Parts: sequence; C-alpha cells; structure tokens
Amino acid sequence: MPIKASELILNPDGSIYHLNLKPENIGQIIIFVGDQDRVEKVTKHFEVIDFETQKREFKTQTGTFKGKRISVISTGIGPDNIDIVLNELDALVNIDFTTRQVKETLTSLDIIRIGTSGSLQKDIPVDSMLMSTHALDINGMLHSYKVDTITNPDIEEAFLKHTNWSENKAKPIVISNSKTLEKRFDSTTIYKGLTATAGGFYGPQGRILRLQIQDTELNNKMDTFLFNGIRITNLEMETAAIYGLSKLLGHQAISLNAIIANRVTGTFSENPNKIMDELIMYTLKHI
Amino acid sequence: MPIKASELILNPDGSIYHLNLKPENIGQIIIFVGDQDRVEKVTKHFEVIDFETQKREFKTQTGTFKGKRISVISTGIGPDNIDIVLNELDALVNIDFTTRQVKETLTSLDIIRIGTSGSLQKDIPVDSMLMSTHALDINGMLHSYKVDTITNPDIEEAFLKHTNWSENKAKPIVISNSKTLEKRFDSTTIYKGLTATAGGFYGPQGRILRLQIQDTELNNKMDTFLFNGIRITNLEMETAAIYGLSKLLGHQAISLNAIIANRVTGTFSENPNKIMDELIMYTLKHI
Repeated sequence: MPIKASELILNPDGSIYHLNLKPENIGQIIIFVGDQDRVEKVTKHFEVIDFETQKREFKTQTGTFKGKRISVISTGIGPDNIDIVLNELDALVNIDFTTRQVKETLTSLDIIRIGTSGSLQKDIPVDSMLMSTHALDINGMLHSYKVDTITNPDIEEAFLKHTNWSENKAKPIVISNSKTLEKRFDSTTIYKGLTATAGGFYGPQGRILRLQIQDTELNNKMDTFLFNGIRITNLEMETAAIYGLSKLLGHQAISLNAIIANRVTGTFSENPNKIMDELIMYTLKHI
Repeated sequence: MPIKASELILNPDGSIYHLNLKPENIGQIIIFVGDQDRVEKVTKHFEVIDFETQKREFKTQTGTFKGKRISVISTGIGPDNIDIVLNELDALVNIDFTTRQVKETLTSLDIIRIGTSGSLQKDIPVDSMLMSTHALDINGMLHSYKVDTITNPDIEEAFLKHTNWSENKAKPIVISNSKTLEKRFDSTTIYKGLTATAGGFYGPQGRILRLQIQDTELNNKMDTFLFNGIRITNLEMETAAIYGLSKLLGHQAISLNAIIANRVTGTFSENPNKIMDELIMYTLKHI
C-alpha cells in the first residue's frame, strides 16, 4: 500500500519535506555536521560542488572530493533532528517517490558525523579528537521504534545499576558503531570511547544554571562507569540516534567528535574552530 | 559560587553561547517560531527592528510593535532546542553575566510560540488555528529536571493506563499553560486542547516509513483519550518543553498552532504558508 501524504510528505517540487532534497541530489557518502555554517567548512575542500539547498537548519551541499561523490548535510541539534534527517535520507534512497512504496533493492549509505562534544574524563583534554566506538542513548527517542535487535543488555543493565537510573526517564540503550568505518577512520591520534547522547544541553547534560536537576551526581556517575574496559568518554546530542537509526535502517555510521569542553576540569576551548578544522581535515584524509 | 565556564558558556563578545545574545538585546515579550525563515514573517509587521543576530538555527530580531519591545526567536526543532533556548533566555534576564551569579530580583518573560502542528481529531481540520490549554510531554526531556511541582498526576495516570505505555519510554507529564496568556489570546475562532509533544517527527509521532515502531496503535490511543472533557487535539515537537521550563523558571507561556496536517484523514495542507500568515496576524492582534 502506498505511504500516505501525511506520513511521507513531499514538497510541491517532489523533494522530501524537511531536507528539501530529491533522490538524485545526494551521494552515497554522507557527512553530518550540526551547525549549518559548518557545511562550507567541509565542502571548501571539494573539487566541485554541483548541488546545494537549505530549508530551516538543514543545509546540504553535494560535490566531489578525490573523485568520490559526497553530500554534507547540517542536521541541526539533537536526536529529534536526527530522526528527521535519517528517515528522510533513507527515504531518498530506499523509497520510490512515484509509487510511494519501499524499493526492492536497498541502498546502504556511509554516514560520518563530525560534531562537537564535551569530555567527561580528565585525561581526554579540550582540543582533542574522539571516535565513538559505542553510543549510550540517554534521551529515549529510539524507544519509539522496535529496538530489540540493536541493544546491548549487559552493559545497559550495568549502567542502570551504577547510576540508580530514575524509572521516570527513558531506559538507556547502548549501540555500537560500524566496525568497517571504525577501521577506516582509526589512527593513533584519535581517542576512542563510549559517547553518551543527551536530549538537551543544560539539565539533560547535568548543567545547573537556575533549575534543580533530577540527579546532581549523574555526570560523576558517568565518569566512573566502567564495563569490560569500556568507559564513558564524552557527552553530546546526536551520536546514539545516528548509530541506532543507521543500524535499524542498514546504513554504516561513525561519529567523530571535536572535544571543545572538559566537564571535569570545567574548561571550555579558547578556539573551538581550530580543533573543528583539524577534525574536518582528519575526516577528509581518511574518507 | 560563580557558575563555571563549561556550564554557563559565554562567547568572546560576552553574548550567551547558542543564542548569541547579550541581556540588552531582548524585550520582555518573546515570540518563538521554529523555522529561522519565519522570523521575518513576524517582524515585517513591526514599526522598527533595532537588533538582529543569528547562530546555527537560532535567529533573533528585536524591535517594536505598537510601542511594545518584542523579540522574535527561531528555536529550531524539538524539545532539546527548547532546553537551550529557554535556559539561555532565562540566563539573559536572571543571571548576572559579570559575577556569574543568579540575580536577586527575577524577571518573568511572556513567551508566545507560533508553530506548526498535525491534528489528531477529525473535526479539527487542516488550515485551522489551535491554542494549547495543556501540553502532554511524551519525549522525556523535562525528566532531567525536578518536575514534581508542575505535573498533573491524575491525568498522567489515566494516560498511562489508556495507552498501556511502555516502561522503556520516559513517563509522560501533563503541564498547563499560562492562564493569563490564555485569556489574552482567546477568541471564538481558535480551537483549544491538549497538545502532545514528541521528540521526533517519524517514529516518535507514529509515522511509519521503513521502520517498525514500538506501538502502531499509539496515535489511535491518543485520538480516543478523554479525561474530564480534555482530549488530545494535536501532536508537535516543542509545546510541552516550553510550558514545563517556563513554569519551572517562572515565565508565562502560551503555544499557538497552525494545523497543517490531519493525521486521521491523512491530509496535508496545500498551502501551509497561508494559515501560518493568518496565525501570525492573529498573534500580533492579541499581543
């Protein structure tokens, strides 16, 4: 049965609702950035840019780098935006917009996130780079989907116990990255670890301004969590949603982080743009 | 004790991190829109615009309308963005940026959201306007804060039972609007009801493209929920976070919605801009 107009929404020109893209506008390698102004910081290194569009916070430029067709897309902030971007990207390659039906042959995309993040470990300093081997979802967006096939119950149970996790909050899930992409983007200069993904920047990441938070000790508990040698290295707002939806939809995903704050020492990068530029060059070198 | 640099982050020019605003840049009446391109659709009606800035999806224009100083801010999409916008707005009026301490005298802002939303009731058609008397939070962002003072346990328990709510998901909360602002923005031409706020657009709102969702019956269950005459009228991504954080921080908030989809009939507005323009005029008339 064709998918209804209120579910798969197409714009009058046939492009998909939020991303404003048609199937022919994207490559099979996708780079995600959060900030729309960061798209050009990546594509300025391309040989050619042959397509660009923007709607809301979703800006896309598609072009060629070392002969590979790559799309750079800004996702905006947070797991809810990732829900939009990943479902619409997948629809672009795996749903026929004319018949509104799922295609018989499916396409798998390579998705590389270049983002900013705060370190939770003293020895992972501001202005370093980090690759997420796993993501810890503490925002709950993924629970709207059937997620049984992508969870890691042992580590999740250990985390629930260690933090005395509130029953009112969504149950945390741990999802692993794409091992193929991990190998491609690995080196001795990049830290690795478990990245926690929160659904907000202040309370959800344990920041206290004027409001009391549910668990003032949560960041300390995350710092000290250890399971089979895996520790929580950093906290941000997108990786778990990218890993979860990519795994469910059959895409390969890796998240690379520029560490711009250290939450243990209470410091913030004096020049966040510099480490972001380095991470962009690192990403393009390994692509 | 002063708030640390990694918690209250200021840009080198002294403006707050994401919004890029200094305390003197905003009025005490704030209009939220989601889409950054919608800011000017509101401020084109102002007598004068005296300030504007943009960083990421957060665009602000401040000016005067009928002698009142008003700021129009685009929040981007979803509760996580609202977490950023409301905490930073509150910091602008209630934290001294020089001493990094909470002020002794607190300021209460009037916050009016103008957003888009999908109707869950057959009799609330596409291209109508709706004011949220309450919001039903089904995304969980607020659970990072202490929320006991703003919940409505009777209606929440009824909703949990009616939907057989999954224990893996965050516990739903119901939060009421500002009665002062409800009176000011009321009329016979605007629908009223309980607005559900999801942390995503596809699975979290029950849309099925390629992925199986946790509860395929959730939208039907929401349609048929009734508690003391209150029914769930519509589904969107910001209102509950705005109502919750505003109540906790002592601000007045109201959410006005342009209904652009009807999820029961499966229809989508043929001209979403028209009803949005009408809602903008309605808002300015009642401000």
